[in-house]
Amino acid sequence: MLEDEKVEKLKKLATLIRYYSLAVTTEAGSGHPTSSLSATELMTGLLFGGMFRYDSDFPEHPNNDRLIFSKGHASPLFYALWTAAGALTEEELMTYRRFGSPLEGHPTVTFRYAEAATGSLGQGLAIGVGMALNAKYLDKLPYRTYVLLGDSEMAEGSQWESMEIAAHYGLDHLVGILDVNRLGQRGETMYGHDLDAYQRRISAFGWETILIDGHSFPEVLGAYGKALHTSGRPTMIIARTIKGKGVSFLEDKNGWHGKPLKKDELQKALRELGEVDRSASGQIPKPDDLKPQLAPPREAAKVHYPPDKPLATRMAYGKALVRILPRFPTIVSLDGEVSNSTGAEQFKEAYPGRFFEMYIAEQNMVGAALGLSRRGKIPFASTFAAFMSRAFDQIRMSQYSDANIKFVGSHAGVSIGQDGPSQMGLEDIAMFRAILGSVVLYPSDAVSTDYLVEEAARHTGMVYIRTTRMDTPIIYDANEVFAIGGSKVPRKSDRDVATVVAAGVTLHEALKAYEELRKLDILIRVIDLYSIKPLDEATLREAASATKLIITVEDHYPEGGIGEAVRSALADVPVPVHSLAVRGKPKSGKPEELLDYEEISGNAIVRKVKDLL
Amino acid sequence: MLEDEKVEKLKKLATLIRYYSLAVTTEAGSGHPTSSLSATELMTGLLFGGMFRYDSDFPEHPNNDRLIFSKGHASPLFYALWTAAGALTEEELMTYRRFGSPLEGHPTVTFRYAEAATGSLGQGLAIGVGMALNAKYLDKLPYRTYVLLGDSEMAEGSQWESMEIAAHYGLDHLVGILDVNRLGQRGETMYGHDLDAYQRRISAFGWETILIDGHSFPEVLGAYGKALHTSGRPTMIIARTIKGKGVSFLEDKNGWHGKPLKKDELQKALRELGEVDRSASGQIPKPDDLKPQLAPPREAAKVHYPPDKPLATRMAYGKALVRILPRFPTIVSLDGEVSNSTGAEQFKEAYPGRFFEMYIAEQNMVGAALGLSRRGKIPFASTFAAFMSRAFDQIRMSQYSDANIKFVGSHAGVSIGQDGPSQMGLEDIAMFRAILGSVVLYPSDAVSTDYLVEEAARHTGMVYIRTTRMDTPIIYDANEVFAIGGSKVPRKSDRDVATVVAAGVTLHEALKAYEELRKLDILIRVIDLYSIKPLDEATLREAASATKLIITVEDHYPEGGIGEAVRSALADVPVPVHSLAVRGKPKSGKPEELLDYEEISGNAIVRKVKDLL
Repeated sequence: MLEDEKVEKLKKLATLIRYYSLAVTTEAGSGHPTSSLSATELMTGLLFGGMFRYDSDFPEHPNNDRLIFSKGHASPLFYALWTAAGALTEEELMTYRRFGSPLEGHPTVTFRYAEAATGSLGQGLAIGVGMALNAKYLDKLPYRTYVLLGDSEMAEGSQWESMEIAAHYGLDHLVGILDVNRLGQRGETMYGHDLDAYQRRISAFGWETILIDGHSFPEVLGAYGKALHTSGRPTMIIARTIKGKGVSFLEDKNGWHGKPLKKDELQKALRELGEVDRSASGQIPKPDDLKPQLAPPREAAKVHYPPDKPLATRMAYGKALVRILPRFPTIVSLDGEVSNSTGAEQFKEAYPGRFFEMYIAEQNMVGAALGLSRRGKIPFASTFAAFMSRAFDQIRMSQYSDANIKFVGSHAGVSIGQDGPSQMGLEDIAMFRAILGSVVLYPSDAVSTDYLVEEAARHTGMVYIRTTRMDTPIIYDANEVFAIGGSKVPRKSDRDVATVVAAGVTLHEALKAYEELRKLDILIRVIDLYSIKPLDEATLREAASATKLIITVEDHYPEGGIGEAVRSALADVPVPVHSLAVRGKPKSGKPEELLDYEEISGNAIVRKVKDLL
Repeated sequence: MLEDEKVEKLKKLATLIRYYSLAVTTEAGSGHPTSSLSATELMTGLLFGGMFRYDSDFPEHPNNDRLIFSKGHASPLFYALWTAAGALTEEELMTYRRFGSPLEGHPTVTFRYAEAATGSLGQGLAIGVGMALNAKYLDKLPYRTYVLLGDSEMAEGSQWESMEIAAHYGLDHLVGILDVNRLGQRGETMYGHDLDAYQRRISAFGWETILIDGHSFPEVLGAYGKALHTSGRPTMIIARTIKGKGVSFLEDKNGWHGKPLKKDELQKALRELGEVDRSASGQIPKPDDLKPQLAPPREAAKVHYPPDKPLATRMAYGKALVRILPRFPTIVSLDGEVSNSTGAEQFKEAYPGRFFEMYIAEQNMVGAALGLSRRGKIPFASTFAAFMSRAFDQIRMSQYSDANIKFVGSHAGVSIGQDGPSQMGLEDIAMFRAILGSVVLYPSDAVSTDYLVEEAARHTGMVYIRTTRMDTPIIYDANEVFAIGGSKVPRKSDRDVATVVAAGVTLHEALKAYEELRKLDILIRVIDLYSIKPLDEATLREAASATKLIITVEDHYPEGGIGEAVRSALADVPVPVHSLAVRGKPKSGKPEELLDYEEISGNAIVRKVKDLL
């Protein structure tokens, strides 16, 4: 096709796509038409300009190019594009934002062409980093990853985490498209239409930058062409655009963010658009039919932990990951610059090609893990439990992308000791429990850790594994079985007067308390609730019924932790559930001093049982 | 003093401070000596070079310069400095990291010279932004804010949020000192000793940059002198340093992060340091005795909400903030570029000088709020409830700084409707409940919102207020009283067969259910649990005892929310607590469709009550 003809065809498509963006939001009565109009040429040029390769009959094709709308509120444009591509009917398009429609207000993976759920700003680039890491280092495929970014969201620190890591890993098949339409939700952005301000920052972060008029197809196509040839660094296309472009009374006007046109306004707008050719359609060329070379799963080695050698569960985690890789060859490990503390270093040493150092940038680490997960990998993302909180929004959003991510948080609780509260994960269980369908595991020794890391890899979904800093004794036999949703009852008799429910570090305290109380001829049942979510309701109910008294003990704040999980499981059982948890202001000290101070030690359990009897 | 003499004196002090950093960590058996040694000249030069102004007998002096150790793991250096200043005895210093000592592993405000708790990396600069905003725009005092930064933590996105906002607000009295010692916890940082890499990025973000050898006192003093004269933009001193500087076997060596010397190693190290003059001491000049001009508290206006005009609680929030400012003249409002949605825009319009647009950068917003809080202000920080999750680590850390911050999260729950899950706050209650001593409020109408915003301002501590997107009817009289820890019982009889505990949007659903059930002659008690933490245990217990059945209803995930809060309050009461909460994958739809789909609507409550009877 001649260049001019091509541009004319794209213009026609752009008019159709503008029409869709406007019509669909008016129909829905909500949505973001003006944020869609600003990026119309940018996206029309990408999808239908001949450079984007995608088999729309086979979205899972491993060599498809990837497109992520980080500015998820431009969803009208997103769906309009796929309609123009013939992948959606107009009728389907018009279900936008209706209950039950896959075309949600912001894209989720219910829509088959969405690579991930977006709409919480500042996250798309990290997802793109994960997909581009996958292309370059794992699948070794030539596909490209494109991310449409809003200018407002560039204020998010997460973007700059992704920026630095993308440059660090030389992700030359990652292309950002920055839609600088000047206006945020409530007024001008920090830099308005100052494209140079973006250019300076982005190129200082090691990216190739291309400045264009985002409404000129020749410039748009030229930029994508140039990006195809950038080597060794990612590319950012920085486009000057007009919010509401194409409709005079919307163009560059404040007060129109997230606001659909009324019916009469729509008619007025459509008159301005000119002729809309609803039979126009765009073609997307298919990608080369390349597939990654996958290692077949093999038998994993066994592990043996000598029963007399205490070991920190965080170290057992790293060892387990190394052990199970042959069985789960799609595992990758990401760590936030603390791999010597989380145990991930062992995996890095064994499989350097499957380990990504993500530095102290947890938001990007989790976003990238999501990108890897969406490309079929099983990412294990590790840092201190406390620092997982930095990525809570990314964790929260992952649940809407059907993520298959394993989060591993070390240094949980006051039992870390002298480093003090800044390093203590004391709200991580609450955080991960509050994710739909999540699994929360908290093993107490190396044997159970090893087993549960493998279970986590086998399970499809979001799993959090909490590990302990200090060495803990081996309490389980090598042939014990652990299951998601299971529990262990290491101490049990038919004379138990109370049940102590513990996990991780407090299980060892409960076992100490058992020994002390036994000397007084007081027998308690001890439950190892290593699977905090889902939890083993049957065992808890049986214990409640048998012992008439439940005491939970956890190295975590009382809210949202083990105590509340157990209470929820036993909500209709008329047995009191007492909770020992971290209630005093945490501070520095020796682990044992702190366990005593917080009244979650063996001594505290003994006292509590005696008090309650 | 002559320049040479001054440098000699500083060198002597630096030797003493190095000695302290090494000795105190060996004594404690843990800590980060090498990260302290790299910044010794930088900090000795700052505190004792004559430019830093501080009255160490009066840390609260409003015109003291402020020093924040963002790299909180350099706490040995921090405490050593104050010992060299005569503010701590050697004996006190040697309590470092012991249980009960104010000298915690990472600084907390238990130590009187710590401006805030640090140690979770990437947060100090934001706190500095808050303090510098206070100096320039609120207190209008000439004090300067200095922040010591580690090179590893520059990977955190939060830093770049602070960077851009500091430049945006022209915070020329904010000085960052970047200790580029090349080594992170487990190896080299992303940029190693490439100072230019930092310089390019930081100056692109609008800062003045000064590159120095961080171990040369003339260069260090020169840099601070230059920073004193920078106008209109903040300054970053980028210093090339050596981790472990001063001890040959530690210098620039990997594997020494967070590792104290053994006793014999310490002796060897001390021999290298040379003569230590333990009688040396540093002087810090006092600041000019300037105070801010404070507006005296005045009577706040009353508000009247016509009972027939529904209003969104988010809008009532903004109105309340405007109303109470005269009574609480230290209030400031910060918002994450959504003030037209959170209601904060009303405050911005009424008091533009006390409103700070923080753009879409929530981590910095919360850090800055902490800085403002530490300087005596009452910051109200608002964004969508969902996006509060982006700042969870900053929120978590604020509890260790005795913060007096009010967080206001709008757009809570599935009841926001069509925008879909990315915009729905469904884990915010869990997040804020898991903060030690926090208050969590969730008003249901404009009247209670107005009252509770004032209560939040009156309360010293961290308060979270959850608001609703949609308009809700006015259900309370203007003369009703609401209290932190209180509740209301809008429906009650002596024939109640069940109690429905609701808050916010679900209270209105509970009231609808009441009407439906009453038609069937089924009476239920309805509790408005507007104070979710602390909660009104007495009223809940009374209801449990009277009605023998509790049903909680919340527009939030089941974990860590209202259901679990109520279960914890009633843990020893043998009455079942059923929970209606968001259990299905949230999606786009009309609010009423979604409340039904999640079974938290009036209809669902009616069904649940009937099922259980």
